[in-house]
Amino acid sequence: MTLTPTKLSKSEKTRQAILEAAQTLFYEKGYDGASVRQIAEAVPIDPAMIMRYFGSKEGLFSAAALVDLRLPDLGSIPRDLAGKGLVRHFLMLWEGDRSGIGLPILLRSAVSNQNVADKIHEVFEEQVVPAISGLVPEGEEDSCAGLIVSQLFGLALCRYILRLSPVAEMTEQEIVERIGAVIQFHLDAARDTAGSNRP
Amino acid sequence: MTLTPTKLSKSEKTRQAILEAAQTLFYEKGYDGASVRQIAEAVPIDPAMIMRYFGSKEGLFSAAALVDLRLPDLGSIPRDLAGKGLVRHFLMLWEGDRSGIGLPILLRSAVSNQNVADKIHEVFEEQVVPAISGLVPEGEEDSCAGLIVSQLFGLALCRYILRLSPVAEMTEQEIVERIGAVIQFHLDAARDTAGSNRP
Repeated sequence: MTLTPTKLSKSEKTRQAILEAAQTLFYEKGYDGASVRQIAEAVPIDPAMIMRYFGSKEGLFSAAALVDLRLPDLGSIPRDLAGKGLVRHFLMLWEGDRSGIGLPILLRSAVSNQNVADKIHEVFEEQVVPAISGLVPEGEEDSCAGLIVSQLFGLALCRYILRLSPVAEMTEQEIVERIGAVIQFHLDAARDTAGSNRP
Repeated sequence: MTLTPTKLSKSEKTRQAILEAAQTLFYEKGYDGASVRQIAEAVPIDPAMIMRYFGSKEGLFSAAALVDLRLPDLGSIPRDLAGKGLVRHFLMLWEGDRSGIGLPILLRSAVSNQNVADKIHEVFEEQVVPAISGLVPEGEEDSCAGLIVSQLFGLALCRYILRLSPVAEMTEQEIVERIGAVIQFHLDAARDTAGSNRP
């Protein structure tokens, strides 16, 4: 979990322990449902220490829900494999190591908290739209990225949050095939729309 | 709003007023965020009256979040129009009159409350799967309905809850075209999967 296990100072270890407890509780209970006191009890540590390290509950949340989607360079894979590639990457963010936990934390809390929803908008503008922009014509990036995200967030909602059985029980390969084809469709439709409807 | 405005008894009017206040507050704040006291203040009425009419907060929520998807008879429209038809119907549930408000209420609260998530599973099993079953081969209904719901819930999440701008700002017609094609794709893929992979 820690990148340099032998080199961490005591203070850095404490910061890391607070962050991991916060990630677990924010993931389980959402931003509004998890209190600083509960997070402190889980470490365990005095709540005042959390404030010393992170300033406020919002500062702690921002650190715990830091999202780096680490999107692959989509220009480096054949265009018609981009859909499946994106889905495989998305599954890895949710099912892989803890480093991808920021997105689940954000998504779960964004439904009931406008500040958190705003953070999702930022991640969308700063990470998703630029990653898509190499694959679709100029002017189509935003709507195409929006449609792709609508399918991927819906997948996350059904598979990981609601745990709707047919979607939760499909194998990774089935998801990559079926949802990958949809993402590919959105990419292709963006190209066709630009070709046929625009001046 | 009321089906027989001239015939409602005083008690029925009270029940209706409580229900509408509850729907508004459960929609805005979710099941956990809205209290019986707040709902009573919005009517306004004594909180004890709410208990008399609905028994408990859970009973009130069940009545407020009653979901009748009123899914159209998909067998009566040409099969290749079913995707667009489903999307049009789904938009109407969210954007139309108040009668479709149960689904938004459920979806918003399901993310943080397991009992509410269970209600979504019921609606899925009892209303969505049967509606899809006429359109895809036996054995494919569940996974196909699950994939369709993953796209439709993701659409609702981005368009109405997160209000992600490219998805929130698309016209109804654009959504029907682009998402309708995806739903149609899921229906067709279910038929093809059954044809090619199954014994």
